[in-house]
Amino acid sequence: MTTVPHERQAPEPRRHAGAVRPTLAVTTGEPAGIGPEISIRAAWDMRHEANCVLVGDAAFLAMTASYIDPSIKLAALSVQALRNSSLPQFGADRIAVIDVPLDAHVVPGTLDAANGRAVLATLDLAVEGVRAGWFDAIVTAPLQKSTINDAGVAFSGHTEYLAEKTATSKVVMMLAGVPGDGQPPLRVALATTHLPLKDVPAAITRDGLAQVLDIIDRDLKIKFGIAAPRILVTGLNPHAGEGGYLGREEIDTITPAIEAARARGIDCSGPYPADTLFQPRYLKDADCVLAMYHDQGLPVLKYATFGHGVNITLGLPLVRTSVDHGTALDLAAQGLGLADCGSMIEAIRTALHMARARRAANH
Amino acid sequence: MTTVPHERQAPEPRRHAGAVRPTLAVTTGEPAGIGPEISIRAAWDMRHEANCVLVGDAAFLAMTASYIDPSIKLAALSVQALRNSSLPQFGADRIAVIDVPLDAHVVPGTLDAANGRAVLATLDLAVEGVRAGWFDAIVTAPLQKSTINDAGVAFSGHTEYLAEKTATSKVVMMLAGVPGDGQPPLRVALATTHLPLKDVPAAITRDGLAQVLDIIDRDLKIKFGIAAPRILVTGLNPHAGEGGYLGREEIDTITPAIEAARARGIDCSGPYPADTLFQPRYLKDADCVLAMYHDQGLPVLKYATFGHGVNITLGLPLVRTSVDHGTALDLAAQGLGLADCGSMIEAIRTALHMARARRAANH
Repeated sequence: MTTVPHERQAPEPRRHAGAVRPTLAVTTGEPAGIGPEISIRAAWDMRHEANCVLVGDAAFLAMTASYIDPSIKLAALSVQALRNSSLPQFGADRIAVIDVPLDAHVVPGTLDAANGRAVLATLDLAVEGVRAGWFDAIVTAPLQKSTINDAGVAFSGHTEYLAEKTATSKVVMMLAGVPGDGQPPLRVALATTHLPLKDVPAAITRDGLAQVLDIIDRDLKIKFGIAAPRILVTGLNPHAGEGGYLGREEIDTITPAIEAARARGIDCSGPYPADTLFQPRYLKDADCVLAMYHDQGLPVLKYATFGHGVNITLGLPLVRTSVDHGTALDLAAQGLGLADCGSMIEAIRTALHMARARRAANH
Repeated sequence: MTTVPHERQAPEPRRHAGAVRPTLAVTTGEPAGIGPEISIRAAWDMRHEANCVLVGDAAFLAMTASYIDPSIKLAALSVQALRNSSLPQFGADRIAVIDVPLDAHVVPGTLDAANGRAVLATLDLAVEGVRAGWFDAIVTAPLQKSTINDAGVAFSGHTEYLAEKTATSKVVMMLAGVPGDGQPPLRVALATTHLPLKDVPAAITRDGLAQVLDIIDRDLKIKFGIAAPRILVTGLNPHAGEGGYLGREEIDTITPAIEAARARGIDCSGPYPADTLFQPRYLKDADCVLAMYHDQGLPVLKYATFGHGVNITLGLPLVRTSVDHGTALDLAAQGLGLADCGSMIEAIRTALHMARARRAANH
């Protein structure tokens, strides 16, 4: 594939009067997984709403796209040319690709540490591009942590890496999606994420919850455009501790944290029993649920959103969304056409919505 | 209300050819809560399928019924007369009530410890009736633990009390319900129930899981009529421990317990990450999910079943189902007609199904 650094063309007529399509960096993730396929499919599906710029190996992505659907058109851009100029605006008839070449041939389904550094470079480029004003948001396809670690770079996940790159001391993981039955979006943020269950109770602290509630409140305002966000907080223990009978963390930690946050003007309440909170009659009056830990909040979120949930990192100085699934190496090994790009489309849609809200907040 | 111990009447024509309506004891629970109302409504709604026998204060229930709907007909039976004879078979035009008189006047919404012993006596009578062959199953409306404890009887819950009364060393709590979208019933059993979260990891043992898996397998066969039950087991930690990276209980305890159970002929598998397990593509091949703890399994069950879940106690030598909610004293205080009896109807329907399966297993 020939790199076309500065292809120029007349802007196409806007589909949304007065609204420029936001430009999203889509990092294509682990090349041996389903990331490249779902990135291409979703970017193409959403091309009239979002100017998605794929970040990955341009030749590999072009080959993949040609197998998926020959009518998909990509246009490759070199990083160097981009740095010396600005991001050209393509119309919705093609998808731009910023070329970050891989070091080894890709065998779908088979990890190769030789490509670990290139995968990481796509994230670096996405952050660079947000800073340079090329992108309004970052959408990340799944990567394989082990590939990057095996390449000799200590790496514990997208979220942690982006926090470090942007010097952010605290981030909050949120999953969001739209239940299938016409209910409002369900958003679940987590007070703790990837911790062994036995370490969860000690990780719930008043200061930690204060930071988490501040971040959720602020990001719901500036990245979701919700003027007065309402947050429901779960308890840590079954039945939210049942008045101390089933654990004291609600009394000693969570309730004081909620009260302190309310005193700072945050509209939060609880702690509520997690098994009764996720009912339409409670959720209809909430913009977000703060669950205390991973398996308290995510099974219901993923059930409700049929695997089309979106992972959102709150607290970063940029908008970042992601799919809610992994690289699916087994599926990738079986060939193209099997992966479901529903979560990726939702991740793009959510990033779009957030990018627009953020723009509006800055005006 | 006059007690009518042995009202006789001609049997009404059977609605289901050849099928005698199973007889269910419905204990009406805390009298100041919504238990009496939902028991009456649900028994009346289900009268053509189930011969529900309410157990509670006959005069109070008659008064309550008359306010709910004057067309509801109750027929009171005295316990003594019953013990000297057998349970008369009523037709579907009325609901039998076994009179267990309260000691104090009922003020809806206001607990009175003076009635604690009478509430407990309804459970005793239900167990006596199953032993005597009067009842095929027990369905319990919610009670208030504190009322019974305040009456001077140490009481930690329906389930524990019924286990003690029947000399059962180990019971398993299961919640079940039918998702609204035509999917098969969802059943979630719990390896631990009402424990502070910090005590959960230590409570997960190989022996404990062995007992739990044996009970689930046996009861799915004899009480649900499932010839070859398939059980999916969650991990304890997020991502089921991710190969030991997020906790070792899966490697040290859960996997060996699953392997040992499989060697005993139980069709179980896992441990699976809880946040991805509750998806139709996995659930369609399962009869039950075994979750490790309360808030890992119940939020999704209650979300999926819209608050119409049924609580089932496995391991008892009798069939017992219950609602999945509490006494709702606040609702009861506001008057009749506000409570939703959907969960009670499901509890009766499930008990019916289980009673029939059990009969079939005994033949």
